[in-house]
Amino acid sequence: MIQKLIESIVRKEAPVVVGLDPNLSFIPAFILDKAQEAAQGDIPAYCEKENVIAAEAVWQFNKAITDAVCDIVPAVKPQVAMYEQFGIPGMIAYRKTVDYCKSKGLIVIGDVKRGDIGSTSEAYARGHLAGKAFDVDFATVNPYLGTDGVMPFVKVCKEFDKGIFVLVKTSNPSSGEFQDVLIGDGRAVYELVGTKVREWGSECMEGAYSNVGAVVGATYPEQAAILRKLMPHTFILAPGYGAQGATAADLSGFFDSDGLGAIVNSSRGIIAAYKKDAYSKYGEEGFADAARAAAIDMIDDLRGAIRGRAVWNIG
Amino acid sequence: MIQKLIESIVRKEAPVVVGLDPNLSFIPAFILDKAQEAAQGDIPAYCEKENVIAAEAVWQFNKAITDAVCDIVPAVKPQVAMYEQFGIPGMIAYRKTVDYCKSKGLIVIGDVKRGDIGSTSEAYARGHLAGKAFDVDFATVNPYLGTDGVMPFVKVCKEFDKGIFVLVKTSNPSSGEFQDVLIGDGRAVYELVGTKVREWGSECMEGAYSNVGAVVGATYPEQAAILRKLMPHTFILAPGYGAQGATAADLSGFFDSDGLGAIVNSSRGIIAAYKKDAYSKYGEEGFADAARAAAIDMIDDLRGAIRGRAVWNIG
Repeated sequence: MIQKLIESIVRKEAPVVVGLDPNLSFIPAFILDKAQEAAQGDIPAYCEKENVIAAEAVWQFNKAITDAVCDIVPAVKPQVAMYEQFGIPGMIAYRKTVDYCKSKGLIVIGDVKRGDIGSTSEAYARGHLAGKAFDVDFATVNPYLGTDGVMPFVKVCKEFDKGIFVLVKTSNPSSGEFQDVLIGDGRAVYELVGTKVREWGSECMEGAYSNVGAVVGATYPEQAAILRKLMPHTFILAPGYGAQGATAADLSGFFDSDGLGAIVNSSRGIIAAYKKDAYSKYGEEGFADAARAAAIDMIDDLRGAIRGRAVWNIG
Repeated sequence: MIQKLIESIVRKEAPVVVGLDPNLSFIPAFILDKAQEAAQGDIPAYCEKENVIAAEAVWQFNKAITDAVCDIVPAVKPQVAMYEQFGIPGMIAYRKTVDYCKSKGLIVIGDVKRGDIGSTSEAYARGHLAGKAFDVDFATVNPYLGTDGVMPFVKVCKEFDKGIFVLVKTSNPSSGEFQDVLIGDGRAVYELVGTKVREWGSECMEGAYSNVGAVVGATYPEQAAILRKLMPHTFILAPGYGAQGATAADLSGFFDSDGLGAIVNSSRGIIAAYKKDAYSKYGEEGFADAARAAAIDMIDDLRGAIRGRAVWNIG
């Protein structure tokens, strides 16, 4: 699966993933209004009316964003929490979003951050990566429980040609509390986790990269430089660009000398672009066009950071 | 919410939680057969037939187990992965299970192990603890992202009188890989996490205990003894009894001198008891009675470990 992602990145010349994290405050009023119609008929069991409406709005919003960006970006990353908060209808909207994005040729990274002990991790892996329930191409995984919490995901990745991105150094302000703590030998916890990711990934190579990738926040370029060396065959998913403060300059060190090795996520910076001054000319009605414009700007920005490296015939 | 849990533990003289982790291999054939009927009519959109059948079997199994144990145990802990693996019908079965257990007077601990950055953690917290979608009494939370990943859960707990159990030292064999690593000052990572749990919990006290609890595996009594001292007001959820190898003797140090402070989980040791020699006389048809017998034996076993401590008028 990692090669499928790389091919798409190279074809579109865009190491960019659009985060589909549709906070209701991002969704234009006209979509929210229209979504009321979804609750006119019978409300299914175990679905609250307000969740049915919210889920419909999320789905319509995602569909329009997806249509607007699917020809220029290789991948999307729906954040399942934003769907799960709306219960059963929310999970249906998640599933519809995943399926729709795949039908548009996009690679789908399910940002689920699951992780548990053996048989439970395997249930998560089968539920999200085995094509029998939710069916994303990559899932994010939390490593706190160690090898026997992660290997069931690796096993399912091998069986179904899927991939995972394991949290190593997250983009949020307090990520250092546990991740940056120095251990006895002078390394930080995130380095120890990175070493394990490399080890887990060695069982799941596909070409120069592994189907076991790592999440490294775009907001932490120093740690990323260390991890880039430590995990030479590990593809990095880098959240935190834009709204969380990271710039293209911060991201240069996330990429390999060949210009590959990382994909950068932006969520609200793209999907809620119409709310920013720079894209306000599109207005609320033009939210999807604004998202496309913001995605193009982000792609141009990142191309600047990796211009001249081997795989890119850019500029 | 922690006081409600404690009252129920004391009333039933049972610091025991039954893990509702219905692996399909635990479910008797006659239930699986009967569940086929659920797929006779139209299959709803976004639900595969085999998931509809599995979810129906899980629900019927859970209902029978719940009926059999609800008067003798204070709480249940459904493991959401076991439901999520069956997609939308699985999540409906999770919700039905949670609601049914609450209707039977049980405290429900949703073993969801969620955790993300700020606004995303808040979406998870609202989705599971705010009464608008899934609605458990306690949720388990993964601390790897640090304070700003956990505090949104604490905020929602305060607002809705709910609780969380934060993973500190998990019960699985590889939990030591990151959790036991010694940091610069000689403490282990799990101690650092425990210190933070105490700090987060100080904002959310209810009587002598906090609504922010900790998960500490019953399989690690030495680490538990350290954590018990480090987190005097933190209630411990201890998985790993029985099938994972921990005994009542291992658990003595999890409880405070007053006999409170911990609740011990057993999943397959109870719900799949009919498959063990000790309870085979109940047969497959008597799986729920076997579960009740195994729960009674576990309660007796644990009472032995805390006999004589203040709150227990036992023996």
